[in-house]
Amino acid sequence: MPESPLPPGSTIGILGGGQLGRMLAVAASRLGLRSHIYSDEAGAPAFDVAAASTVGSYADQDALERFAGAVDVVTCEFENVPAATLEACARVMPVFPGPQSFAVAQDRLAEKDFIGALGIEVAPHLAIDRLDQLKAALARIKPPALLKTRRLGYDGKGQVMIRDKAEAEAAWRGIGEVPAVLEGLVLFEREISIIAVRGRDGAFKAYDLTENVHQNGILAISRVPAPNSLALLAEATFIAKTIADALGHVGVLAVEMFQRADSARPGLVVNEIAPRVHNSGHWSLDACATSQFENHIRAIAGWPLGETARHSDAVMTNLIGADVEKWLSLAAEPSTCLHLYGKAEARAGRKMGHVTRLYPKT
Amino acid sequence: MPESPLPPGSTIGILGGGQLGRMLAVAASRLGLRSHIYSDEAGAPAFDVAAASTVGSYADQDALERFAGAVDVVTCEFENVPAATLEACARVMPVFPGPQSFAVAQDRLAEKDFIGALGIEVAPHLAIDRLDQLKAALARIKPPALLKTRRLGYDGKGQVMIRDKAEAEAAWRGIGEVPAVLEGLVLFEREISIIAVRGRDGAFKAYDLTENVHQNGILAISRVPAPNSLALLAEATFIAKTIADALGHVGVLAVEMFQRADSARPGLVVNEIAPRVHNSGHWSLDACATSQFENHIRAIAGWPLGETARHSDAVMTNLIGADVEKWLSLAAEPSTCLHLYGKAEARAGRKMGHVTRLYPKT
Repeated sequence: MPESPLPPGSTIGILGGGQLGRMLAVAASRLGLRSHIYSDEAGAPAFDVAAASTVGSYADQDALERFAGAVDVVTCEFENVPAATLEACARVMPVFPGPQSFAVAQDRLAEKDFIGALGIEVAPHLAIDRLDQLKAALARIKPPALLKTRRLGYDGKGQVMIRDKAEAEAAWRGIGEVPAVLEGLVLFEREISIIAVRGRDGAFKAYDLTENVHQNGILAISRVPAPNSLALLAEATFIAKTIADALGHVGVLAVEMFQRADSARPGLVVNEIAPRVHNSGHWSLDACATSQFENHIRAIAGWPLGETARHSDAVMTNLIGADVEKWLSLAAEPSTCLHLYGKAEARAGRKMGHVTRLYPKT
Repeated sequence: MPESPLPPGSTIGILGGGQLGRMLAVAASRLGLRSHIYSDEAGAPAFDVAAASTVGSYADQDALERFAGAVDVVTCEFENVPAATLEACARVMPVFPGPQSFAVAQDRLAEKDFIGALGIEVAPHLAIDRLDQLKAALARIKPPALLKTRRLGYDGKGQVMIRDKAEAEAAWRGIGEVPAVLEGLVLFEREISIIAVRGRDGAFKAYDLTENVHQNGILAISRVPAPNSLALLAEATFIAKTIADALGHVGVLAVEMFQRADSARPGLVVNEIAPRVHNSGHWSLDACATSQFENHIRAIAGWPLGETARHSDAVMTNLIGADVEKWLSLAAEPSTCLHLYGKAEARAGRKMGHVTRLYPKT
């Protein structure tokens, strides 16, 4: 049963203190809500914009229960939060999204099986728990194929490309000999994502499709609307709604998809989902009346969802590592919204900020 | 001499912890800057989004110097800050805007004389220090006329309308027998404001004209662009630039003007200025790539100014006192950006939040 909406002045508890937590906290403040950030990292970027913060381990059940007791709802900025962490919070306070969203999104095998069972296409895949299984699987899913750990992969980490079956052993060692999934490659034209949001009451909205370009396994550029994507919007929205409903998801759900490069079988294949605000939706901060961050807060707080329509077209570019050194020249560019995350050290591969360039709506 | 821009990670010190300080702190966070709020009020709304906060008296020179020593630049969310407060900070750290902007904006007589001396029209006015002066002045500035305290007026406070010269004594007592200015009424069609920003290097930009509607002396609605205002934009921009340059102003400067209701003498009369972000510029949060808050932070931090062009038309409506109780239905309106300030108590006349409704750009 949906409870009544949290009134202004309530406190949102956010597990995780990175840039997503930071932008969630800012979105909460717009709505007159306070934020309390829980992070295992002292000086986390989100602390700078939160009314309260706790530095604690994600394994510290007592600290987590105290945190949950000090807020009015708990959410999360990252999907790889341990189930026990969520359970500790949930003993004290509602946690949104719920455990099923995390269970499915944390395990590449569970994710593909769950989505496939809904009649939504995913890449061909097989579970791999041992080297001999991998060797046998490579007879069914022919190389080139991807061997991915079931858990804890992000930004291209935890995966190895197998180009020839002779590489099986090296690949198995390469991913650390842990439970994995072998995925057949989808020949795709481009990667597309959809950012959707589902309320406590089951209300559902989705933003326009985004075309994403990755570099070195990390999202580099998101373009909205994805060019020539109008014909795909209904299919993508249906996919996102089907998954969100099946999960009983509450909050933002991002669905990354491949658009197949096969004129005989056009359409979308789901690559992965994220039960949270997503880098490919950052453009919504500047191009929509309601951003993905605000809509996530609205959803978990039991508020009506905000409009997801765009007032502008947008191209979002991540500032990764040393890219951030260009901040002063980026600040001088017209129609460019600069976002810096307040991270002290610009390590290689680290997301330091992003820019969204706005264009008149097409 | 303009110093080099403050790098990301620097801390903005903000005197005042109300909604303007809160929105300034959020704007700073977008740019990777931290905020430290100084307020004499425990639990001030801006504390919820600031990395650091100090509760202290604006007369506590030691606390102010410690505050200024902990930040990289000092600014202010309100114009009626005592000169000694600004001086205490300025002994330790640069303060923007500078003292002249505050000295002029704090004193209605100095303000009118300063602006009039620039060749910009202001209402006819006379200085009033004693009752007999007021009586004599009413022979030159005929009733109806406004008697206003020179200092500490805002939202319609500190002023009395004199409709007949027999009311002089009651009016003089009504404003507390303090130094005042008698103003002739300007017969105006409407009130218009312009939000401008001037950088440390003298760079200048202005937003489009806003038409403002007041109720009970408090801003109720701002509409942008002000209908049929294109012909006035150059004059208003010239006025704002002339004043900002003459003050050596750094940061946002709001200029409130009357559009005269006199076809024989059309044009603008300056009513008052505010050396800060202004309620009539709140629409820029949702209708521009760079808001007034971000541009104020950019200016005082020595950054390039951001674009002031609109991507949407907008109507901003203040939520005053009990208006805020409508938050749930407002949250459900399409194309409506809801902003709540995190104030606990909805007293009559208190600004609790605002909504900006967006429309396609005309």
